[in-house]
Amino acid sequence: MRVEIWTDIACPWCYVGKARFDKALAAFPHREQVEVVHRSFELDPHRAKGDVTPVLTMLTRKYGMSEAQAQAGEDNLGAQAAAEGLEYRTRGRDHGNTFDMHRLLHFAEEQGRQTALLDALYRANFAEERSVFTEGDERLVELAVAAGLDADAARTVLADPTAYADEVRADEREAAQLGATGVPFFVLDRKYGVSGAQPAEVFTRALTQAWGDRPPLTLLDDDGAEACGPDGCAVPQH
Amino acid sequence: MRVEIWTDIACPWCYVGKARFDKALAAFPHREQVEVVHRSFELDPHRAKGDVTPVLTMLTRKYGMSEAQAQAGEDNLGAQAAAEGLEYRTRGRDHGNTFDMHRLLHFAEEQGRQTALLDALYRANFAEERSVFTEGDERLVELAVAAGLDADAARTVLADPTAYADEVRADEREAAQLGATGVPFFVLDRKYGVSGAQPAEVFTRALTQAWGDRPPLTLLDDDGAEACGPDGCAVPQH
Repeated sequence: MRVEIWTDIACPWCYVGKARFDKALAAFPHREQVEVVHRSFELDPHRAKGDVTPVLTMLTRKYGMSEAQAQAGEDNLGAQAAAEGLEYRTRGRDHGNTFDMHRLLHFAEEQGRQTALLDALYRANFAEERSVFTEGDERLVELAVAAGLDADAARTVLADPTAYADEVRADEREAAQLGATGVPFFVLDRKYGVSGAQPAEVFTRALTQAWGDRPPLTLLDDDGAEACGPDGCAVPQH
Repeated sequence: MRVEIWTDIACPWCYVGKARFDKALAAFPHREQVEVVHRSFELDPHRAKGDVTPVLTMLTRKYGMSEAQAQAGEDNLGAQAAAEGLEYRTRGRDHGNTFDMHRLLHFAEEQGRQTALLDALYRANFAEERSVFTEGDERLVELAVAAGLDADAARTVLADPTAYADEVRADEREAAQLGATGVPFFVLDRKYGVSGAQPAEVFTRALTQAWGDRPPLTLLDDDGAEACGPDGCAVPQH
């Protein structure tokens, strides 16, 4: 079974939702047969690469709320994150463009390091004091290396804005086709969707339902083509 | 959409069948949205690693056929391969254990190099004069490098017989669960199966049917959990 999770590194509910999903998956009896793939979804794709704002400023501008209200929202998120055992820095986080991080996540997927990099990016963005937005490519290279990627290879990907750009855009088109308007968005075997940072029990139910619903395989054109089996290679006589 | 192909490097119909499938896929309008994964299936899993036999000897022993009959079978395969534009060496090929190649293919999958390595292994086994069975690990390392893998990393995988062994066994268990008794065995979205080296038209029909049959996504527990969208992160009031 395959679970695809559309996500953005700048999305606090993705950070919390992944922890809830991971909890459900860890207890799922067939977890060894579940493959998880992370897909790209930028919350703020039109923000320029260098345009970095404190999260609180972004919130007050976007919603016309007071700084105290914005801070209360961050505190609420911090509490929800803590309930999942996650660190969350409720003061002084930055908001910015995440396109390069998504490109790097696609490179990491090819290298079998996608989950490790996503966890490193989440942790860096939500829990660490240093910004993932203001220190340039070398900060992301550092996180890539922590996730087991080669520094020079990561640097090369980051230096070329077209590298893995099509893959990010393709994920975003697919999200739209699947009807996702926000993230996190979980898709199980392209059959069931779960939207938002649902409680772990919801993910458990979704995994169980999708697992139980896998259809039996329908063999197409099964009139015997050439194949090899343990007894050798047969050449049908027609 | 995802197509999984169970295959063995020692399986001539897998070599031919992959070319026919590739032809169908190249002409499939949604090919960019089709992901292909190669799965392991050993035709001769109980053969010891060092036990290498000429293919003709294996065929005469296994079927009690004459060497001339075995050679006629190889010539027939060579003709079918040629019809797909593939080179096929009908004289002097070897037969042996392919477990290490499957382990290496799983490593290559992690590195995004699986198809390149499979093509290199097929070509080496079916078209090249040098044996893939008698020259030891370094021959496989050479092919791994040709497929874009790191030589030392490939050497490390090959030197440790437990590396990726579980992944190979898991593929083989899954093949049995899906009802595959021979290879190549193609599985589309875990819904449709195609067995054997069918003509390209059959693969075209299977791709078209599986694509058209993708179910619309069913949203589970869609009563609004916390999510972030282009308009920001919402906290539901319940």
